[in-house]
Amino acid sequence: MSDFKYEIIESLGILSESAKGWTKELNLISWNGREPKYDLRDWAPDKEKMGKGISLSSEELKELKRILDNQ
Amino acid sequence: MSDFKYEIIESLGILSESAKGWTKELNLISWNGREPKYDLRDWAPDKEKMGKGISLSSEELKELKRILDNQ
Repeated sequence: MSDFKYEIIESLGILSESAKGWTKELNLISWNGREPKYDLRDWAPDKEKMGKGISLSSEELKELKRILDNQ
Repeated sequence: MSDFKYEIIESLGILSESAKGWTKELNLISWNGREPKYDLRDWAPDKEKMGKGISLSSEELKELKRILDNQ
């Protein structure tokens, strides 16, 4: 997985920032030119490295919002 | 990471289900008896396997809700 590219289409928000400057972010990202997906992930400062994350479709994001609204 | 245990404290909701029955879920999980964290992850049927996921503190979950409310 070293040869891939991505484009951050939209930065939706930052959930938190660690002492070392890593941020947990919700972005809309296109991976290898494919259709963009929502992406919840840790990033090093200036996006130099990416950490673990999870991709969400727009339907999944809607469901997540509904779940959080019901808490 | 083969020797760990977890307890699902609360199942908050299912975001989606794949054709093979894997579900993307938001749960409150205690890993190895530690303080529970929110967890967004794919699960095989009957929780037989777990996929990639991301843990969120309650503060991060609140920020995520705020971000989604502003979309």
